[in-house]
Amino acid sequence: MTQRRKIHRFHLDGSGTEYPVRFKEDVIAAEEPLEIRLGGRSFAVTMRTPGDDFDLVAGFLVSEGVIRDASELVSLRFCAGGPDEAQTFNVVDTQLRPDVPLPETMRHVYTSSSCGICGTESIEAVRKTLHDDPSADPLKVPVDALAALPDKLREAQAVFDKTGGVHAAGLFRLGDGEPELLCLREDVGRHNAVDKVVGWALRQGLLPLRGTVLQVSGRASFELVQKAALAGIPVLSAVSAPSSLAIDLAVETGLTLAGFSRGHSLNVYAGRDRLERPWAVTEGLLPAGAGQEN
Amino acid sequence: MTQRRKIHRFHLDGSGTEYPVRFKEDVIAAEEPLEIRLGGRSFAVTMRTPGDDFDLVAGFLVSEGVIRDASELVSLRFCAGGPDEAQTFNVVDTQLRPDVPLPETMRHVYTSSSCGICGTESIEAVRKTLHDDPSADPLKVPVDALAALPDKLREAQAVFDKTGGVHAAGLFRLGDGEPELLCLREDVGRHNAVDKVVGWALRQGLLPLRGTVLQVSGRASFELVQKAALAGIPVLSAVSAPSSLAIDLAVETGLTLAGFSRGHSLNVYAGRDRLERPWAVTEGLLPAGAGQEN
Repeated sequence: MTQRRKIHRFHLDGSGTEYPVRFKEDVIAAEEPLEIRLGGRSFAVTMRTPGDDFDLVAGFLVSEGVIRDASELVSLRFCAGGPDEAQTFNVVDTQLRPDVPLPETMRHVYTSSSCGICGTESIEAVRKTLHDDPSADPLKVPVDALAALPDKLREAQAVFDKTGGVHAAGLFRLGDGEPELLCLREDVGRHNAVDKVVGWALRQGLLPLRGTVLQVSGRASFELVQKAALAGIPVLSAVSAPSSLAIDLAVETGLTLAGFSRGHSLNVYAGRDRLERPWAVTEGLLPAGAGQEN
Repeated sequence: MTQRRKIHRFHLDGSGTEYPVRFKEDVIAAEEPLEIRLGGRSFAVTMRTPGDDFDLVAGFLVSEGVIRDASELVSLRFCAGGPDEAQTFNVVDTQLRPDVPLPETMRHVYTSSSCGICGTESIEAVRKTLHDDPSADPLKVPVDALAALPDKLREAQAVFDKTGGVHAAGLFRLGDGEPELLCLREDVGRHNAVDKVVGWALRQGLLPLRGTVLQVSGRASFELVQKAALAGIPVLSAVSAPSSLAIDLAVETGLTLAGFSRGHSLNVYAGRDRLERPWAVTEGLLPAGAGQEN
């Protein structure tokens, strides 16, 4: 259910005169696609943390109103899938009791454009859809400016203060001065908040979004990295943790992915070379070797 | 983007001798389905907070790899939909430039079983799928026992402590003594964690889950209330805020819905009559009228 990844942890003290950075291994929640089949036919694909997969499939069928009783579920088994019929443990086939009516419509929880049966395939599907190469974006981002974005997002949030129940996505441009908020959107769905920002940019003729940073209020999933990459955004920063597949996709598409961004500290999981020393720090004050790891 | 709802706010002080409860109006994040059509054909349905809907549709099409440029988007318009062709502002039809290839597969982000084009219709779809009537469950829950569940969930969480990146769902039975944790599941997707719990219960022959409480780590959306209701769970409690449609569905299906459950306080949005005075409080110490509002 977890994987290990090498990350950079930046900790900035209030004075701006210290610049410690640690290169360490961290434990990351695993994310992989799961395809649910009914009698051999594909019914749904969802992104999940591997583990208890038969429970997940059974519960999903209850939530969809397909079954209500264990006796309606004849069997659950992992089956091979994909081009070379390899056993990925990411496909579960379900045999229902013959008298249980099959649902009329098949459901795709996951984006059709990058529906894969293993992480590598999902990443490959996104890469094929990419119009622009985010890795080519020469943007450099001062660490302290990046770490300050969650506070700026919260300051600008209109709905959050009132309800505490929405996610926010903010698109920033970082210049020499204060970060400039280009667009802020809020929604009960994190993916919707990001789609609203990207759609705003498209309609303003701003795509691909070179030279920008997308700050989101929650976690960073595969889907959010996909949305940032397809919009040409080079840096995605989350207030909370990323998943394993979010990191892998960021590495593969050349995106910078930051997480646990909390004012005076943040973790960098991919694309660390876009990060620059803090604005406030003069070269002479840098500890020997700071910024030289990796 | 927000709606107002009447809620009960309970605040329990540490001594257990006070039982203040306030009946007040609160601001809730709105949640409604949005159907996205391409050239008149249904492409996707997503649950979203109304507002900036054209941006949402445009951004969704970018994220799906369908378009990359504003010129590929000829028009966006709200269209009438549903049985009486009423204008709900929940259906957006999109005209793409004729040379833009349409995606091969249509995508359903939202559950097929309760895909509606307005909140009322989505609720009706769930009601039709319900096997059991959660409102018939005679369970009573002491307020302090309910408010203590998030801490118990965190204590039991295996993955969260290590990664900070997963959601948790815990199924509890509240007896006369300490709440008993029946099943805990974690996942990068909140809905998956709940499905894993429900699937475990189905395979144990425990459905419908009468007399239980489902505690979740994040917010309470329409989808989570749907999953609880279909599993026959009478009480859903969230650490964070519910959406408007989550409250409406809980009211309609007779579920008790609590939110912002944080040890010494919680809000109740629906089904308040299942809540009992705290264990620790003797009748004589109750302030006049406490527990009598509504």
